Amino acid sequence: MSDLPPRDDTDDLEGSIPIAPDRKPTGPWHIGPRDLPLPRDVSDELRESIAATPQPDPDEAGVPDDEDAVRALVADMDALAAEQVRALCDRVGATITPNVIGGVDVFHVSPATLDPRHEDHLFVYVHGGGFILNAGEAGAMEAIVIAHRIGIRALSIDYRMAPDHPLPAPVDDVSAVYRQVVSERPAAAVALGGSSGGGNLSTIAVQQAIRDGIDVPGALYLGTPGNDMSDVGDTLYINRGIDRAIPSHESYVNAVRFHAGGRELTDPMVSPVYESFEGFPPTFLVSGTRDLLLSATARTHTRIRAAGSIADLLVLEGVAHGDYGNPLNSPESRFTYAELNKFLLQHLS
Amino acid sequence: MSDLPPRDDTDDLEGSIPIAPDRKPTGPWHIGPRDLPLPRDVSDELRESIAATPQPDPDEAGVPDDEDAVRALVADMDALAAEQVRALCDRVGATITPNVIGGVDVFHVSPATLDPRHEDHLFVYVHGGGFILNAGEAGAMEAIVIAHRIGIRALSIDYRMAPDHPLPAPVDDVSAVYRQVVSERPAAAVALGGSSGGGNLSTIAVQQAIRDGIDVPGALYLGTPGNDMSDVGDTLYINRGIDRAIPSHESYVNAVRFHAGGRELTDPMVSPVYESFEGFPPTFLVSGTRDLLLSATARTHTRIRAAGSIADLLVLEGVAHGDYGNPLNSPESRFTYAELNKFLLQHLS
Repeated sequence: MSDLPPRDDTDDLEGSIPIAPDRKPTGPWHIGPRDLPLPRDVSDELRESIAATPQPDPDEAGVPDDEDAVRALVADMDALAAEQVRALCDRVGATITPNVIGGVDVFHVSPATLDPRHEDHLFVYVHGGGFILNAGEAGAMEAIVIAHRIGIRALSIDYRMAPDHPLPAPVDDVSAVYRQVVSERPAAAVALGGSSGGGNLSTIAVQQAIRDGIDVPGALYLGTPGNDMSDVGDTLYINRGIDRAIPSHESYVNAVRFHAGGRELTDPMVSPVYESFEGFPPTFLVSGTRDLLLSATARTHTRIRAAGSIADLLVLEGVAHGDYGNPLNSPESRFTYAELNKFLLQHLS
Repeated sequence: MSDLPPRDDTDDLEGSIPIAPDRKPTGPWHIGPRDLPLPRDVSDELRESIAATPQPDPDEAGVPDDEDAVRALVADMDALAAEQVRALCDRVGATITPNVIGGVDVFHVSPATLDPRHEDHLFVYVHGGGFILNAGEAGAMEAIVIAHRIGIRALSIDYRMAPDHPLPAPVDDVSAVYRQVVSERPAAAVALGGSSGGGNLSTIAVQQAIRDGIDVPGALYLGTPGNDMSDVGDTLYINRGIDRAIPSHESYVNAVRFHAGGRELTDPMVSPVYESFEGFPPTFLVSGTRDLLLSATARTHTRIRAAGSIADLLVLEGVAHGDYGNPLNSPESRFTYAELNKFLLQHLS
């Protein structure tokens, strides 16, 4: 919490009530088993989706530590995701068009209906997928949801990824596209962001822009951002075996290691929560009570505010990592993007 | 989530990726044991305080189900808390003066130094304590912290409590004081709120004011509010045995039963999360990753926003129920009240 206000000795309020002071202090806590019922105060759609989900297994194999095995896994999953992206485009009448910007592959995403209030705005979208998944069209899913629900043009960055392209390649690609975009239009009219690994890369792109004197975007979107990829964070332990998307830190850490290319996992290029948030743009964050990355999201939120900027956090009941997009037809999902839209309308100019 | 936007059939985005569709669905999840290390990304002060705390025991006896036993417990704890309140007053140079407003006992709390920006403002404070604790001066602790750190005059309500005075007595008292206060000064210059049970009663007072056409306060403060006293809420299960202030729902439910006076625990007079949030004032909420009432806090935050009002949520790493006041000399505590002050300066007029 190094960015929090320093202690002021004139405000030495030590009058807190010690809890059971007669008992002995202990080290790490051993937390017993418990039952977790289906969440009751959520939409029918989310509840049914969770009810149909197998219980998360924190010890499942997850991402392999073998490069070829990763490539095979990724190829299968990306092919499935690309099909779903094309089906979604058809259903909502969006179009996606490949292009190259700043030397990087991108997709222009155009909604069927543009909201005139967003006529001059652009959403630069950075997909998630643990720094290994969602190459090509597969990465455009949430960009289409944002473009469609918010009525805004989006640009989805098809950045290079591990294992073939570890850091700094993904960061270089996102920064290159962002810089090209803001050289052609006012940064205040540009939103940047994405979910999970995309939140991580968006955060780093902003930190680099600030360091290099490039204008920050008018608004930043960080959906359950992977802003601490190390094993630091309460909810990595608390929501272990509870998050239905990423059941444990171990389940994805091999992907992070490929991405890190030998860097420590607390290196700010891997875990931007350890870098400065001074000068950040207004930032909208979303997480949930079952999110393994709730701590990473909340710590980012706290740090941006401690640095004096605007940051707005949603924590949704029953929602695991990325569940505001799963299912997409839930009221929770609609609410998330409606709130994101309010935030964009307030802060983009 | 009944207050979330209704489903829009033109936006039928069902393209979510099913998770492991080849596995069988299951019912409630049985979550295995886990180790929870000391939080690493928190202040030294909070970390040391947690390290000195015995591991929470979710099966501890908690509040007795016998009225006389409750009275004895309360007498001892209130006497200790009253001593701490007097010591805190001495240390920060605040004064507390008893009075009667609207027929209800209150304490005027004056800070040593009033911030001129808050010259015309008043913070109407509603203490917590599970609806049984903190009668008399004991209830003024957080009011003094707010008055001192924010430089604002406060009025701490010494409302009647269970077991002698179940509902509606506590609600009647809080509403009576609030109504008297706003009959004498603009409601827009009045902040209302408190922590835990005090957040619950403040929420209900606002709901009653809205129903009765009384002006709402300029700002509302809900610190980890007890807005769902039933057994509904993810974090009642997830943070069971993890929250060092209230280790389980069972540990305090007897107090709620005395307070409820025979009402169901999902009755909106007991659990205001089940009442409408239409017309709410700008509301500042704070919780933490170890808070048993994180779900109650986050659900309240979501509902206020879904009803179209401003609501701002902090979730602090490592923080259990009320830990933004324990220890009071932590950066987390200072940050919380600094953020509350920003919010008040923005919304009170």
